[in-house]
Amino acid sequence: MLNFEFHTPTKIYFGVGVHKDIGEIIASYGFKKILLHYGMGSIKKSGLYDDITNSLKKQSIEFAELGGVQPNPKVSLVRQGAAICKKEKPDMILAVGGGSVIDSAKVIAISALTDIDAWDFSAKRQTPTDALPIGVVLTISASGSEMSTSAVITDEQQKLKRGFNSQLNRPLFSVLNPELTYSVGRFQTGCGIVDIMMHTLERYFSKNKDNDLSDRISEALLKSVIKAGEVALNNPTDYQARATLMWAGSLSHNDLMGVGRDYFFSCHQMEHELSGMYDHVAHAAGLSVLFPAWAKYVYKHSPDIFCQYATRVWNIDMNFQEPLETALKGIITTENYFKAIGMPTRLNQLNITDEKFEEMANKCTYLGKRTLPSYIPLGEKEIIEILKLCE
Amino acid sequence: MLNFEFHTPTKIYFGVGVHKDIGEIIASYGFKKILLHYGMGSIKKSGLYDDITNSLKKQSIEFAELGGVQPNPKVSLVRQGAAICKKEKPDMILAVGGGSVIDSAKVIAISALTDIDAWDFSAKRQTPTDALPIGVVLTISASGSEMSTSAVITDEQQKLKRGFNSQLNRPLFSVLNPELTYSVGRFQTGCGIVDIMMHTLERYFSKNKDNDLSDRISEALLKSVIKAGEVALNNPTDYQARATLMWAGSLSHNDLMGVGRDYFFSCHQMEHELSGMYDHVAHAAGLSVLFPAWAKYVYKHSPDIFCQYATRVWNIDMNFQEPLETALKGIITTENYFKAIGMPTRLNQLNITDEKFEEMANKCTYLGKRTLPSYIPLGEKEIIEILKLCE
Repeated sequence: MLNFEFHTPTKIYFGVGVHKDIGEIIASYGFKKILLHYGMGSIKKSGLYDDITNSLKKQSIEFAELGGVQPNPKVSLVRQGAAICKKEKPDMILAVGGGSVIDSAKVIAISALTDIDAWDFSAKRQTPTDALPIGVVLTISASGSEMSTSAVITDEQQKLKRGFNSQLNRPLFSVLNPELTYSVGRFQTGCGIVDIMMHTLERYFSKNKDNDLSDRISEALLKSVIKAGEVALNNPTDYQARATLMWAGSLSHNDLMGVGRDYFFSCHQMEHELSGMYDHVAHAAGLSVLFPAWAKYVYKHSPDIFCQYATRVWNIDMNFQEPLETALKGIITTENYFKAIGMPTRLNQLNITDEKFEEMANKCTYLGKRTLPSYIPLGEKEIIEILKLCE
Repeated sequence: MLNFEFHTPTKIYFGVGVHKDIGEIIASYGFKKILLHYGMGSIKKSGLYDDITNSLKKQSIEFAELGGVQPNPKVSLVRQGAAICKKEKPDMILAVGGGSVIDSAKVIAISALTDIDAWDFSAKRQTPTDALPIGVVLTISASGSEMSTSAVITDEQQKLKRGFNSQLNRPLFSVLNPELTYSVGRFQTGCGIVDIMMHTLERYFSKNKDNDLSDRISEALLKSVIKAGEVALNNPTDYQARATLMWAGSLSHNDLMGVGRDYFFSCHQMEHELSGMYDHVAHAAGLSVLFPAWAKYVYKHSPDIFCQYATRVWNIDMNFQEPLETALKGIITTENYFKAIGMPTRLNQLNITDEKFEEMANKCTYLGKRTLPSYIPLGEKEIIEILKLCE
């Protein structure tokens, strides 16, 4: 177990109806004016916008507004948000939505108190030193952004998607009502399941041994999500399944699954090129395609952990004569599960051909200047080979 | 899954050598003067006291001192600590030790800023509204107090042991170096294992169903602790085993295991009478005796969860014809594990006879005015019957 720091101060309000107290929650921190940040308007159709603004009004909390966050949130909107904050001077930003809205809010919060351009933080040219506090009302279980230090945005001009981590990105509080996810459709629910699993798997498959407790907690979360995912897809209003996915989403990315490990996150790095280059690709759909290919490419270099995964998470019998067979079965079972929940596992399902493999590999390695860490280092050549396994 | 709030802001510094940076850690919060609080002097023999005071001096952090915390920490020392704080006005309290020292520090921190007597908080006659910040350097994996909201102290005059929970009790930071627990002896290590398991089990065995994720995370922690406990007893300097116990201790009592549940904690309630009345009884030794008896007394009223526990944690085959047999096997296997790690499972091993059963049951029910929640309510009669099962 490696040395680590663990600090997850985000306060969680979880359960039935909790979002209706958002005004009281905000008032309890002493905030009087907020920027209300949201997506493409579904919260207006669902009535959530009214629930929230009514609760704000009851507590006499003023609010400015910025809607319009798209999937793969854009730096141009972040710049707008920062300009609004400079003018309106809210005490905090309330993100109402999923990962895209929250990530957009995080980068606005950091850009609001400085003249540094938002993209400089995402491109890691500048380190943030201050930020407005962020609150969240979550509407989809997926990104874990509601409790995480990470924020990912896209520069639509350069077709670059970049993320950075900062303790300043950790929301002050997040309001998690599983009922708000009843209306999330099949595909988005599937995306959420893959997202949650991938946040866990990208930490689980590390080079560090001797993490029995983190391993077992990760396996517990995966087993629970695999089961709840199937239930939620069959019955979108199953509260317990939706609640499991929602809480698992937060735990999968709040650092708990990663303590004691130095992790790779190589599928995420590759996926950022995919959905950065092809805007129609949902992040989780990219991950769903990339993970099985990545795992098939690297598992022979670290079969033990893949066997542990296969036997403990999927209850596959260990073949002690042929451990690689067990390891591979775990990967294929994962791939089949992704298929079964309606997620793509091949690039052609995303209408992507091999035409830009070299460009993606080149961007992903910062023009050939880095390799991605993994069980073997992944340079341009290896990334192209993994992309070919996705065909 | 019940609605819940979750807020664990304690920052953890975990790993090899981390305690040597205590001065820098404290300085990073801007504190300039502290009260150094510790136990019966073992930290002076081990060199830990020097490590810490040297690190404080390097950062020019002033410190007042109060040693002398005993197991089952006493309210009289807490009163002394509060008086020192009123005179010396430290910015924070640094607890160096195990659960007793930390709990003592917590109640000092709350009593330091008020004229209300410390016992009034423990007896729940007063609710704390302010406290000095607390930092911890942990020397034994057991109580979870380093990340918890709870504090338990004893009034030695009245022979009463009482605990209370408050978000103000949550330490600001805790420094966890597993190496500091190498010198913890067999019995204390066994006590720690039971303590960690019991913080988990007392949340696991609740009346609320539909907590699959919390159940599985709890089972993961238990399995990891059961294994690491045996390793640490066989090889006290096994870093990985000591690290697993230390991190598990924090997670077992930081609320993570309990989300979505309304839990009983009835063994803890009964144990407080035991070690409150018999000062020679270590808290965990009392729990080790009480849990199997409690479980045998109540399992027939909720066999499902006991079967789940038996099959998932102890890999006992499910007997679908006789589920009660499976449930009981899980309890007996736990009892045997406690024996195997050198813990008592009968009151005579603690030199306790039935002489004060009625008095304990009477105190535990607040003179017959309450029942303890459990799968059936536990009044005086039931508590006496459980105590008899401990004989």
